[in-house]
Amino acid sequence: VAQARKPFKGSGRQLRVDVPVEGHNYAVLIGEGLLDRAGDLIGARLRGQRILVVMDEAVATPHAQILFKSLSSCTGVEAYTCKVASGEQSKNIKELTKLWMSLGASNVGRDGAIIAIGGGMVGDLAGFAASTWLRGIDLFLIPTTLLAMVDASVGGKTAINSTLGKNLIGSFWQPRLVLADVSTLRTLSEPEYCSGLAEVIKYGIVKDRALFELIEERCDSILCRDPETLSEIIEWCCSIKGQIVVRDERESGERELLNFGHTIGHAIESKLGYGVVRHGEAVAIGMMAEARIAAEIGTGWSDAAHERLEELLTIFRLPCDLKREGAPSARALLDSTYSDKKVRSGQVRYALPTALGEAKTGFEVSDEIVLKVLRELGAAE
Amino acid sequence: VAQARKPFKGSGRQLRVDVPVEGHNYAVLIGEGLLDRAGDLIGARLRGQRILVVMDEAVATPHAQILFKSLSSCTGVEAYTCKVASGEQSKNIKELTKLWMSLGASNVGRDGAIIAIGGGMVGDLAGFAASTWLRGIDLFLIPTTLLAMVDASVGGKTAINSTLGKNLIGSFWQPRLVLADVSTLRTLSEPEYCSGLAEVIKYGIVKDRALFELIEERCDSILCRDPETLSEIIEWCCSIKGQIVVRDERESGERELLNFGHTIGHAIESKLGYGVVRHGEAVAIGMMAEARIAAEIGTGWSDAAHERLEELLTIFRLPCDLKREGAPSARALLDSTYSDKKVRSGQVRYALPTALGEAKTGFEVSDEIVLKVLRELGAAE
Repeated sequence: VAQARKPFKGSGRQLRVDVPVEGHNYAVLIGEGLLDRAGDLIGARLRGQRILVVMDEAVATPHAQILFKSLSSCTGVEAYTCKVASGEQSKNIKELTKLWMSLGASNVGRDGAIIAIGGGMVGDLAGFAASTWLRGIDLFLIPTTLLAMVDASVGGKTAINSTLGKNLIGSFWQPRLVLADVSTLRTLSEPEYCSGLAEVIKYGIVKDRALFELIEERCDSILCRDPETLSEIIEWCCSIKGQIVVRDERESGERELLNFGHTIGHAIESKLGYGVVRHGEAVAIGMMAEARIAAEIGTGWSDAAHERLEELLTIFRLPCDLKREGAPSARALLDSTYSDKKVRSGQVRYALPTALGEAKTGFEVSDEIVLKVLRELGAAE
Repeated sequence: VAQARKPFKGSGRQLRVDVPVEGHNYAVLIGEGLLDRAGDLIGARLRGQRILVVMDEAVATPHAQILFKSLSSCTGVEAYTCKVASGEQSKNIKELTKLWMSLGASNVGRDGAIIAIGGGMVGDLAGFAASTWLRGIDLFLIPTTLLAMVDASVGGKTAINSTLGKNLIGSFWQPRLVLADVSTLRTLSEPEYCSGLAEVIKYGIVKDRALFELIEERCDSILCRDPETLSEIIEWCCSIKGQIVVRDERESGERELLNFGHTIGHAIESKLGYGVVRHGEAVAIGMMAEARIAAEIGTGWSDAAHERLEELLTIFRLPCDLKREGAPSARALLDSTYSDKKVRSGQVRYALPTALGEAKTGFEVSDEIVLKVLRELGAAE
């Protein structure tokens, strides 16, 4: 279980995280200009010639153009395209079926591959299609949002949403390679960019006080999207996630730490409506709620830590409460937590922080405390 | 890679095949009366309490009743039911979605399970649902057809069909336990029962001359569905498949041996229409066609072996040619072979017998030979 930070190709700007999941080792390359080199990097790992590039409509220009130009250097490769409408609502059975049909129409065989370029939505959807086409074909991920770089790059989770809830249908499927080109982050809108920072903060809270403090210290560089700082932070997050995932590929224990903020975050997304609130925004509110729950039940989470969390979320223009028009009721949110896939036999289990940089899993919290905290944060009665 | 034949619980009638797929060891239990003991056998392996029983409508009575009675002995277990209309045409996206919705409605969690009872269709469909619900839950298979017992019990293949073709969408997902109760075979119609014998014969041809000769020798007992003989033969087939699968879980090489008869068999199913011809019947014709191809290209497959194959198929009332109303054209069948998922970069690769009990994979055959053989077997021009 090696997990090294190595300079990549001698450039200070390019970093590499190796994710040694058993039988499916792969690398996450992080840096500027990786998209220009995608043809070489992916081409060297292709087993066949037919690939389907699945792209978020929003990134079709200009990132996809760079990708296609780069892929054109791979002799013999036939790249087909499938565009998916932007937004979490595209992660559905209908779009999945569309991808399957595209794979069939393009005659992508077992030695073929999918390249997913875009945010987490595209990675989740295309990853699920890759895992289920001909019982599994190769997958290359090119995340173009901060959220996708720090969250979806490592872990092999794929999924779609349904009327039943978020991510309930899906699979574990490891990519062959991930290219996180930080240049693409410059094109994100501010709310979208900041949404990704919620997950970055989460890593600091549950696993690494030093990361949290680095984020505090460099918050200006982060807001300016300085590529060096971003590469370093993304690499740090991927390393943390890689270490956890390698020890717990199927999320039976330690991996649940990463659900901090997500039990309530998912409920918020589900009740406000996917697309109405960004994932990272919902997670920001979810972290505030779950950190308060931690304080309520006495995990050791201190007021001082709570203030630092709130301050950092505020600096990054992330929401800290539910005070808004159309806020769902505390009861509706609570009910929604019970349909989360983390629920085992009817009991919701929370991952809660015990200190800055430390968290524990498996907390069972009374409905009363959850309702109280949600109401304090501005949920309707 | 152990692969032992052990007597099961001291009874001469109950056999056991251990399938030691890495990280997912499981047993196939074979014998009479296993359905009555399903509650104990499955109950001991359940991790949670909620299970969804997916059943072929046709087996709802009486097999499912025995299963439910047996499950009622498992304290605390809540068993929900989802019926699927009989027939290969139910292996589709709509029915898959229905299963996902049932899993959601029944609140089956990560520690829950699916029990699939019925033929291969139910196992494939429910297995795919199990592999994709919450990124994978436990699966128990209770095959009630001979085909499902010898084919789907071992190997972890799950799939659905689509307008693109058969089994193109699916996953690899190993069951926790398989119960092959040979008593259930008595209720099959003769064509359905005989259809399963095509796969049994296939194992003999590609891997074990002694099995082929046992089938020849005991063809009367087999036609009478003698439980002892059936248990022995099913165990033999599962052992062969288990050995192959363990060495080649993801079908990169040796496992392709088991595709003998299936390249053309699938084309026949696809062109005649699923449900119009039984899978085993299509495989019988497919074996005849592919064995002729073997003879044409000179793999070593002899006329004497070919006659024995044809004789055995005939004894078991399986079709040996395409001479029938509405037979598809040779060209249409050939074209259909190119959409099979075994196709790599446009080249169809056949698994062909070289002698009775031996076969090789990876044969590339000219279109002319395939067309010639198909026409000889009665395909339309």
